[in-house]
Amino acid sequence: MQFQIQGADAVSKARAGTITTDHGTIETPIFMPVGTVGTVKAVHTAELTDKIKAQIILGNTYHLYLRPGLEVLNQAGGLHKFNGWNKPILTDSGGYQVYSLSGKRKIKEEGVTFQSHIDGSRHVFSPEYVMDIQRKIGADIIMAFDECTPYPCEYGYAYKSLQMTHRWLDRCIARLAETEPMYGYNQTLFPIVQGSVFKDLRIQSAEYIASKGADGNAIGGLSVGEPAEMMYETTELVCKILPYDKPRYLMGVGTPANILENIALGIDMFDCVMPTRNGRNGMLFTTEGIINIKNKRWEADFSPIDPGLQNQNSEVYTKAYLRHLFIADELLGLQIASIHNLSFYLWLVGEARQHILAGDFATWKTMMVEKVMRRL
Amino acid sequence: MQFQIQGADAVSKARAGTITTDHGTIETPIFMPVGTVGTVKAVHTAELTDKIKAQIILGNTYHLYLRPGLEVLNQAGGLHKFNGWNKPILTDSGGYQVYSLSGKRKIKEEGVTFQSHIDGSRHVFSPEYVMDIQRKIGADIIMAFDECTPYPCEYGYAYKSLQMTHRWLDRCIARLAETEPMYGYNQTLFPIVQGSVFKDLRIQSAEYIASKGADGNAIGGLSVGEPAEMMYETTELVCKILPYDKPRYLMGVGTPANILENIALGIDMFDCVMPTRNGRNGMLFTTEGIINIKNKRWEADFSPIDPGLQNQNSEVYTKAYLRHLFIADELLGLQIASIHNLSFYLWLVGEARQHILAGDFATWKTMMVEKVMRRL
Repeated sequence: MQFQIQGADAVSKARAGTITTDHGTIETPIFMPVGTVGTVKAVHTAELTDKIKAQIILGNTYHLYLRPGLEVLNQAGGLHKFNGWNKPILTDSGGYQVYSLSGKRKIKEEGVTFQSHIDGSRHVFSPEYVMDIQRKIGADIIMAFDECTPYPCEYGYAYKSLQMTHRWLDRCIARLAETEPMYGYNQTLFPIVQGSVFKDLRIQSAEYIASKGADGNAIGGLSVGEPAEMMYETTELVCKILPYDKPRYLMGVGTPANILENIALGIDMFDCVMPTRNGRNGMLFTTEGIINIKNKRWEADFSPIDPGLQNQNSEVYTKAYLRHLFIADELLGLQIASIHNLSFYLWLVGEARQHILAGDFATWKTMMVEKVMRRL
Repeated sequence: MQFQIQGADAVSKARAGTITTDHGTIETPIFMPVGTVGTVKAVHTAELTDKIKAQIILGNTYHLYLRPGLEVLNQAGGLHKFNGWNKPILTDSGGYQVYSLSGKRKIKEEGVTFQSHIDGSRHVFSPEYVMDIQRKIGADIIMAFDECTPYPCEYGYAYKSLQMTHRWLDRCIARLAETEPMYGYNQTLFPIVQGSVFKDLRIQSAEYIASKGADGNAIGGLSVGEPAEMMYETTELVCKILPYDKPRYLMGVGTPANILENIALGIDMFDCVMPTRNGRNGMLFTTEGIINIKNKRWEADFSPIDPGLQNQNSEVYTKAYLRHLFIADELLGLQIASIHNLSFYLWLVGEARQHILAGDFATWKTMMVEKVMRRL
């Protein structure tokens, strides 16, 4: 995997680059739609490329391990072959999902024992096994197995957890070194900085992660309930330590404003369920602001969903029609909203990239943060 | 509206023709996807044209009247403008839906009083009002307001109901004569033959309907639980009486075999929720037979859903992937299955048309009925 920086903002820490993988090139900053169980919810594979202009999608190790399971994915020739998406795929390590199964999991040095949310069956994820799973899924970018601490979190717990996450990272690296990439494509590891909101822990973690010389580095444990300012402070601190010449991925973030602010701090990659999940609840992100499409206000508004977005759906379907679909509880409403919101997110990072390259990112960002978070 | 017959089968009563409306031409025999509330469930408008090759869709007067309501539809400039479908639309009269609201409706000579299934509010549909509603929806083909009798049905009830349906038809015709087409497109009425499964009533009704000289004629009250043989006998009887040079529409039918058998009896138009509803339950109609995609049998079957179908989805997505989507309860599964089944239905009537024009419909039909109803 290669990362090339093509331009950097003079005022902020924002940069524009390209990540080259065996499944194609990604232009950064980039947003990665979340394809939890091997599908970006309510979106056809072709729509991801043609309408949303997605360049890389996310898969969830925990969900894919349970369904369809490793045997099917392996027989298919990996997730790319299974779902027909032939561009890059990043898989999370399953850590975040497993820890969300509160009361159904037990964390030990060796690994995590958990019960499936589907049938209660018992499973064990160790750092080694999670590397094997991600190899079998066929991820271009494999995430390290880590513990994502909650917010708020006791310092003592965060400290101990971080040391284990670091030991787990070494086990992940060792396992990948002794196994081969699958399906004929290279696979690379991104380690994850943790440390909750404690500056000394974040510094310690960032330095440890940076020392591993990985192709890219991630920041985890943010956007878990802490105030946005705390997130930005942590990102700023960590980005100063992580290598400049490697892509930086901020996991699970966030709102359009969060994304713009974090780009300004030096982040290159993002993922979040917000555009699809909130879309399915009728919340639309548009170039003019945020819309609750269920509002009576849109009942007879026959203007396009978002005239500012170069996307067939957003230009063709009207607000009144989409509102009707939500009020009548029609599946097509979920589809249109999902495609629209993802298109908007991809448009937003694409615009950010253009403004970084054009040299006016900082002023554009200030204007956009206000604009995109406005309630219409 | 014009109907031209381009070819007829020598052995059966099947014919191939074209129906010309102000919103475009329809090649018959044709299947009309059902767009209940202004959307064919889980299918984008562009997919209807590009993938499914639909030529005309159905709208439901009862549902559209309740949501989004006439005022919104009228302000939009009709259903075509509202949902972006610019080819022909046929609307049912709401009769069938209203009668399905058992216990929530009262039928009188004047019309039907009913309670909304959404909020229990009271409404009255009279033949006149239902014509006004369909004008406002902007239907190219307006269906007469009729009573659809259940199966089984007492002779006495069927007799009385039929007389009222005929009187209602005259009121529909009168109302349309004194009102203007809307939105600049012509609108034409199809009367409906009723009479349950009683031959004398069906003959009486078909003769009455034929005497009106409408642009097209429909057969209602079938596929409501009667044996298939009874349906075919009734269709055959009625088709002999309905004018040869006008399109014949068999309402709410049916399985792929039902469609082929009824084409052979002289039917030109069909609609049914089966491809979409059954599709959402994981039942796929394919060129090789019927598939329950949830079966474990397809878990690792990486062949296309239906290699025999010229449709991007059916060729690209595999059985194993679609099964996974259903098992994981993913929306994309409903979307793929709906598009596939509708594509299959449109393919089936298109093939029937080609074989009628080629002169080998009867032998092809016998072979296909066996093939498409086979359980795989």
